[in-house]
Parts: sequence; structure tokens; C-alpha cells
Amino acid sequence: MKLGLIFLISFLFLMNRMDREGCLNLKPMDAEQLRESAHKMVDFIADYYKSIEKFPVLSQVEPGYLRKLLPDSAPYHPEPLQDILNDVATTILPGVTHWQSPNYFAYYPSNSSIAGFLGEMLSAGINIVGFSWVTSPAATELEMIVLDWLAKLLKLPEDFLSKGQGGGVIQGTASEAVLVVLLAARDRVLRRAGKSALEKLVVYASDQTHSCIQKACQIAGIHAENCKALTTDSATNFALSPEVLADAISRDAASGLIPFFLCATVGTTSSTAVDPLAALGRIAKSNAVWFHIDAAYAGSACICPEYRHYIDGVEEADSFNMNAHKWFLTNFDCSVLWVKVCTYLLTSSFRTHIMQPKIFNSLHDVVTATFYVIACVPCQSSVSRKAFKILDRSALIQSLSTSPEFLKNKASEGNLVVDYKDWQIPLGRRFRSLKLWMVLRLYGLENLQRYIRNHIQLAEIFEEFLKQDSRFEVVTPRLFSLVCFRLRPLNCDLNSCNKLNHDLLEAVNATGRIFISHTVLSGRYILRFAVGAPLTEERHINAAWKVLQDEASSLLELL
Amino acid sequence: MKLGLIFLISFLFLMNRMDREGCLNLKPMDAEQLRESAHKMVDFIADYYKSIEKFPVLSQVEPGYLRKLLPDSAPYHPEPLQDILNDVATTILPGVTHWQSPNYFAYYPSNSSIAGFLGEMLSAGINIVGFSWVTSPAATELEMIVLDWLAKLLKLPEDFLSKGQGGGVIQGTASEAVLVVLLAARDRVLRRAGKSALEKLVVYASDQTHSCIQKACQIAGIHAENCKALTTDSATNFALSPEVLADAISRDAASGLIPFFLCATVGTTSSTAVDPLAALGRIAKSNAVWFHIDAAYAGSACICPEYRHYIDGVEEADSFNMNAHKWFLTNFDCSVLWVKVCTYLLTSSFRTHIMQPKIFNSLHDVVTATFYVIACVPCQSSVSRKAFKILDRSALIQSLSTSPEFLKNKASEGNLVVDYKDWQIPLGRRFRSLKLWMVLRLYGLENLQRYIRNHIQLAEIFEEFLKQDSRFEVVTPRLFSLVCFRLRPLNCDLNSCNKLNHDLLEAVNATGRIFISHTVLSGRYILRFAVGAPLTEERHINAAWKVLQDEASSLLELL
Repeated sequence: MKLGLIFLISFLFLMNRMDREGCLNLKPMDAEQLRESAHKMVDFIADYYKSIEKFPVLSQVEPGYLRKLLPDSAPYHPEPLQDILNDVATTILPGVTHWQSPNYFAYYPSNSSIAGFLGEMLSAGINIVGFSWVTSPAATELEMIVLDWLAKLLKLPEDFLSKGQGGGVIQGTASEAVLVVLLAARDRVLRRAGKSALEKLVVYASDQTHSCIQKACQIAGIHAENCKALTTDSATNFALSPEVLADAISRDAASGLIPFFLCATVGTTSSTAVDPLAALGRIAKSNAVWFHIDAAYAGSACICPEYRHYIDGVEEADSFNMNAHKWFLTNFDCSVLWVKVCTYLLTSSFRTHIMQPKIFNSLHDVVTATFYVIACVPCQSSVSRKAFKILDRSALIQSLSTSPEFLKNKASEGNLVVDYKDWQIPLGRRFRSLKLWMVLRLYGLENLQRYIRNHIQLAEIFEEFLKQDSRFEVVTPRLFSLVCFRLRPLNCDLNSCNKLNHDLLEAVNATGRIFISHTVLSGRYILRFAVGAPLTEERHINAAWKVLQDEASSLLELL
Repeated sequence: MKLGLIFLISFLFLMNRMDREGCLNLKPMDAEQLRESAHKMVDFIADYYKSIEKFPVLSQVEPGYLRKLLPDSAPYHPEPLQDILNDVATTILPGVTHWQSPNYFAYYPSNSSIAGFLGEMLSAGINIVGFSWVTSPAATELEMIVLDWLAKLLKLPEDFLSKGQGGGVIQGTASEAVLVVLLAARDRVLRRAGKSALEKLVVYASDQTHSCIQKACQIAGIHAENCKALTTDSATNFALSPEVLADAISRDAASGLIPFFLCATVGTTSSTAVDPLAALGRIAKSNAVWFHIDAAYAGSACICPEYRHYIDGVEEADSFNMNAHKWFLTNFDCSVLWVKVCTYLLTSSFRTHIMQPKIFNSLHDVVTATFYVIACVPCQSSVSRKAFKILDRSALIQSLSTSPEFLKNKASEGNLVVDYKDWQIPLGRRFRSLKLWMVLRLYGLENLQRYIRNHIQLAEIFEEFLKQDSRFEVVTPRLFSLVCFRLRPLNCDLNSCNKLNHDLLEAVNATGRIFISHTVLSGRYILRFAVGAPLTEERHINAAWKVLQDEASSLLELL
């Protein structure tokens, strides 16, 4: 008995020690240890996808659940990988809302694909920090090339290509994309009108525009009352009316304010409304207003010829944004922004160059610059008509560039390269173009179009279900893969109808079987069913509809 | 012969078709396909680390090299993974500057570790977007817990912990960290002094402070002339002098400006100078100036008791930043920011709550709020002494929160949770705490301390080499793992000495055997040797020294 106990204690001690030794041996980096543990992680993640339908889609934990399960402080001694994987399974996954579940229909999708995941792995493996060209030329150059590829798939105007007058850059999110162009537009005006004009600057968007425009204004110091959310309603399917915009601009200009920025949306967050780009763009242009297009979600669909018309008018835009991390199989984050700027000016040493006559590198440049002066300057009646417009193409860089000594290098100083640090808020940046490159190559346009069309078809199926059940109504036209609907009002009481739909949302999400989200349009509480997860098939649409019908029946019975 | 040709053509056609079929079958997502291809990618990455020393550390390609190697547009048909891996090897890797090479000594390190890589994989695999608590409770809660763990390892004041008065948040970069607190500080002042006071706001930093402070000022609309880079020199080892700061603040305040933000640095980018936090913090506090500490690089060392004193005085700070993605084995990006704010106020619905009497949830809160009013308000002689100071703890959220209908949810509305979207510029955010959690657990404090100490020891060895070669001099005291040095001037001519060292840098980096970078301190061109790559061992230091000696000898012979 005693001997047995001693043996057991010795055994446990030895096991613990072996385990500890195994951990202690994990080096900061080592090719073979990396190989072994990363293979384990691959299996863990593949198993996650294999069992993903077993989890409640919306996490059902209570606030503060995790603190009860984890220690108060980091361990002194290392712990084995297996313990961590076990903890992920038992403590983390219950707190995850499964965006990759085929039963996820909330907000907008955030795709993880095989190609996107492989790209993330490769990017994390190489782990470079590509702020300047020299810190990894491939990172900058692949980004330029791949964003040209994508621009061509979207049939964006030549002006947005890096070979021509413009170029693309990968931002983290649409919020950062709109912020950087807002800053560029702001500073472009302030250079002419003086810094104290800040309080006169006015931004236009619709009341359906994503909240990121409001946040960008807050950050840029645009006064809240000058961030105009122009009212939309069902008459235009919640698209911004050009007349409303023109009126607002005229009124503001007449009262001494300075209209300077317009954000239009292709596929609004609430209901996929599409603003009329061409008409809005003409108004923007004739008022010397920077015209930004947010196509974060719906932009992806425009690689299909039958949906491309939704971005007709993009040629009027100064900047265009699409989130490849939403509905384009590229793991988060990958928000693509294109701007019309001359790439040869986009270097950190631009500031020194604009002071010198050698700004014109070719006849083409001189012609372009002249065009800008002729075309744009007449609109700026109240300010100096010097050749400042030439500089506008590099507005982004002028707002965001810094050139500290410790980052100076031959290629940048020689004005030979793009340094993406000057196109974004952060300095450091990941090698994100790898994943987009892999998505484009591993699937090809063929499969990407098929992917988009399939989701839209699934949304159509869901829409058809709704139309065949008189208790429900589709509340805005379905343009892409989002269906906006609600239980019909039983009487004329808006509030009780809103409450009913709110209760339906809560009931449906509480089942854990699907996850949908909501919005409010003209005071009406609306349910949103957004198809777009890579694993979603027709059977999931059928099952989701069954959940909705069942929960609706239960609720309506209680009335 | 003819038959043979037909056979060959048929074979090629069949192979191509099989290949195509194989590709076409790659689904957007599929557990088994993911498993198979991700295992391939693991081996590719492990092999990369195995052969990493064979690459030139600094990429030797010419600008525009990649466009010559890649097609002009994305493929219509899918391509096989193996083709892409081959292209990575032949076209991408030559354009990579190998930050993970053991012979990388430039800028500061950007660690990739086994644990960090596994964390990135897991995060990309789950691929949630954690902007609000509800979108994956585990993402928000693990971040709060893990940043508490790290705060404790750094012995940060209780005020920075999420349980107490503050909390941590993972930003992408130190640039974003300083920007968000600058915005919080800006808006805190503007709420009192009025929006038109923007032009009077003054930011203080030293001339050694990272350029991100200048960029943050540009973004926030702080006038360039009010972003004061106070001069430092070798008398203080390039640390900011409290007297210089106090003088500047007095002078500016006397002339009607509003001093409002101080950024001190622990481990400057050029030479690891450490600003005297305690003295600076007292000046900041007595002038109601927001005190931010940038310890992006050197913060990691402070988990070792013998280096902790470098952040003595952190208790005076309003915010503190450290980049776990630099020297803390956490793959890019992971910049940790701690702020002193009351977590119960940090919700998107805060704005509705501050208008109501229920702001005080407990006696503790009332006491704290009272303390703030008593301690802070007297400093604000020229402005209203109402209880605005109570609100200052949530300054960050007040600057960055939005609450669109489509993101509203019970947990946020109920004021029960933290929504990190209101602590940062973007809306979406990756599950980055996973990798930091895995780093802390897979290595444990024990190995993390060993890791830091080892690098500092290696830097000491390099420093010793320099001291024993009379041609070189160490130009600033080595505090951490960066050695600043140069070839001594042969005569009194500064310019020729600078040129000599510049030439040495170019020569050394052109060998591809090591990569170092430079800075300029008080007009002197300085070489920087930053130890910190996870694979670096003593033999790499010896070899690097040999390269430097050889190239120096060649250069000096030419004189």
C-alpha cells in the first residue's frame, strides 16, 4: 500500500516533470518544433470546421463568464500546447459567436476560406512589417499588382490603377479607408482656405451611411453638426437623392460653409441601398467635393457582369472602397481602397519634390497636371488659383506621410517606390496581399463569380419563402444576398409590431440554431437575413426558414 | 511517331484537365480540404525557417521587379496550390526582407514565435470580427484578462487593470495607440474650452519621440507648430529634460496656448533613450496635461525585475503602450495600450448613461469620482469647475464611440460589457488576444525573461567587440538590446565621418549577410545594431561582427 502510494507520487512527479521538460524545450522559434505544433493546430482548426454546426451560432454565455474560468495571472512556467487546445475547446469556443457557421446570417458575412486562411498562415509565417518598400519589396509590389487585378475584375476606371493615375492600398477596415480619404480631402481644403476653416467644412452622406463616416468626422475634427446625414426613405429605397444633396450643398455654401466631402454607398449596411453614383458624382465634381464610394459589402458582387451596373458612375469618384474580408473569401482584415493619385508622387520624399521643378517626369504628367488646373481650379473661386491642384492627386500622402531619419533609405529618397506607410494611419503593416492573391488564384474569377451568384440565389430562395407566408413581408427590394423582412403588423400599431419583431429576433437567436440581426428603417424594426458564409447551402436556408416559422408561430400564438 | 505525338498531346490535355478538376474542386471552405492544404502550408513555412539563413537578409531586388514576373490580371480558372507555393519560392521570397532571420539587426525586431504563429493560425481559423462583446464574448473577455496578466507582469499600477479603474486594449500599432489617446485628450479639452480652441492645443514630446506623434497630430488637426519636439542632446543621453518641458509649458500657457498632451518614451527609436517618467509625469499632472508613455520596444524588458525601474513613474501616466509584436514573441500586429478609465463606463451606451443619475453604481465609484473632482478640477482655473472630470475617465470612449441601430444589442444597451470598437479607430477587429495568451502560456514568464535577458547579453557581447576595436565607438549608453555605434571620425570633419558610416551601412547591407539600420543623433550619422530576432544566437553576433569588421577594413583601405 505504502509502496503503491510512493510509486504513484513518483509517477505523477515524473509525468509532470516530463511534461514540463517538454514545454521548456519549446524554443522561441525552431523549424521542426514549429512544424510539429502547427500540424497539431491545423488538425484542431480542421476539426473545428468539421463540427462547426454543433455550436450555438450566437454564443450563449453571460457577461464575465471567462474570468471565472481562467487564472488571475500568467503562468511562471510554460504550459503544454495540448492544455491550451483543451482550454480553447472548453473555455474559448463556448464564448465564440461562429461567424463561419453555415447558419450565420447576421450583419454581413466575414468570410474565412481555405485560400484566405492559407494566405493568413503564410503572412504570419513570413511575418514581415512592410511599412516601406525596402522592408520587403515583395509586400508593396504584390499589393499594387493584386489590387490592379481586382480593380480590373471590378472594371474600375484606369485612373484607379497603379500604372495610371491612381492605385490601391489594403486598409484594415472600411472605417480606416474612409478616414484616410477624409483626412486627405480635409487637408486639401485647409491648405487653400487656412486651418481655421476647419469649422466650416461640411461632409455629406445619407442617413443610411455606415457609422464609420461619423466616427471619421469625430477623429478629423469635423464639427458634428457639419457631418450631414441626409434623410432617405422608402420612396428611393433608402438611397440618397441627388436633389436632396444638391439642395444641401447649395444651402450650406450660401451660408458660408465649405462643402468638401461626399460619401456614397453601394449596398448600405441596413438594407443594401445603392446610392445613384453618377448623379451624385456630377454634383460632387461641380462643387469640388471629394467623392468617396463605400462598397464595402456589395462591391464583391460587381465582379459579375450582371451586377456591375451598381457601380456605374464610379468614374466620377475620387476614392472607392470594398471589403474583401466580407464576401470575397479573404480572411479578416482586408479592406481595399483605391484612390486617384499619381503613384510617382506617392513617396515619403514627396515633400521635397514638390518644391522642385522636376515634379514633371514625363509629358504625360505635364498634360495631366495641366488638365487638373484647367478642370478644377475654376470651381475654387474664393481661393488662390495657383497650381495647388497639381498637388491634390497626392492629397492622401500629404496628409499621412512622415519621414523620420531612421526610416530613410535609398529607394524612398530616390522617389522610385511606393511606401504604403504614407497611405494609412498605422506605420507597420502586415503582408495582407498574400491572402488576396491566393484567393484570386486558388479560386479564379470563375469560382468567385459562382460563389457570389450562389449566395444571391440562396437569398432569393429565402425571399420566396417569405413571400409565400402571409404573416411575413419583405420590406425593401432584395438586390444582393441580404433580405430585409418582418412580421406584418397585425394592426396599425407600429410599436407593437416593432416589439413583436424584436421578440422574434431574440427568440430565434436564443435557439442557437441561426443568428440574424436587425435594423430600423423609417422607424420600423426590421430583421436582416444576410446570406454569405462560405459553408452555407440550400439545406441551411431551409432549416433557417423552419426556425423562423416555428418561433414566429410560438410568438403569434401568445398574442 | 504520329501516334506518339497524339499520345503526348492527349496526355498533356488529360493532365491539365485533371489538374484543373483538382483545382475546381477546391471549395470556399471544407474541413478536409482545409486540413490537407494547410498541412502543406505548414511544411512550406517550416522549410522556410529551416533555410532562412540562406537568403540575403535585406532583399536585393530592384524597384518594379515583381511586375515583370507576374501576369497582368487574375486568372479566370483556378490554379493549384503547388503552383502558388512554387511562385512564392521563386518570385515572392527574393523580394522579402527577412525580419525573422537570425542575422536581422535593423530597426527593432518584429518577432514571430511558434506560440505567436499558432495564435495567428487559430485567430485566422476562427475568423470572428470582435467589434462588440456580443459578436464573440470570448474575444473581448480574453483580451481584458490577458492584458491584465501582462499588466501584472509589468507591475503596472492597479489603475490600469480592467478590474480597477482602467483597462487594456490591443491596437494594431503604437501609431494607433498614441492617436486614440491623443483624440481622447483633445476632445476632453475641447468639451470644456470649445471647439474653436483646437488651434491653441499644444502637444509635447522630445525630438527623439517616434514620428507617430507627428502623424497623430496631423490626423487630429493639431497645428503643426503646436506639436513641439523639444530638443534633446547627449548631455541627457537624448532623454527629455523635465526643465525643458516645464519651461515650454509655462511659456506656451502664458502666451494663451493650451498645453494638453505629453508623450514620453521608454526606449526611443533612435537610441533607446529613456525619458524621466516620474519628473515628467508630475509636470504633466500639475498642468492637467494627458501623460502618455510610449514603451513600444523597451516595455517588454520591464517584465524582468532588473529592468522594471525604467518605467518607474508610470503611475503618473494616463496611458501606457507596449508593442508585444516587437520583442515579445507575438506575431505582428499586437500593440497593447492601457488607459486609466472606469470600465463600467466603457460601453457604447455610455452617452445615455452620463445623462442620468445612475452613473454611480457603487460607493467606490462615488469616492473615485469625488477624488477626481477634488484632485483635478483645481488645476483648471480658467474653465468651468463642474463635474466634467468625472467624465474624463471615459474620454477615450467619448471620442471614439458610435452606436448605430444595426449594432445595438442587449448586452451593450444594458451597460454590462466592454465593446472594444469604442476603444479604437476601426470598427472590426481580429481575435488578437489569442496569440498573446498563447505566448504567455506556452513560454511562461520564466522563458520570456530568459528570452529578453539573452538578447541583452548578446548586445553586450557586440558592444564589447566594438570597444575592443579602436576604429569604432559606441555613441550612446547601451540600455537594452540596441547598440548605437559608428566608425570614429578620422579627423574633425563631421560630414566625411557621416559619409563613411553611411557607406559602411550600404556596404554591409549589400552583402545580404546581415541587415542593420541607421539614425542621426545631433547631426551624427549613427549605425544601429538591434538584437532581437528569435533565432539569433551568439554565433550570429560573431559572424555579424566579422562582416562589419571586413567591410570597415575595405572602406578604410580606400581612404
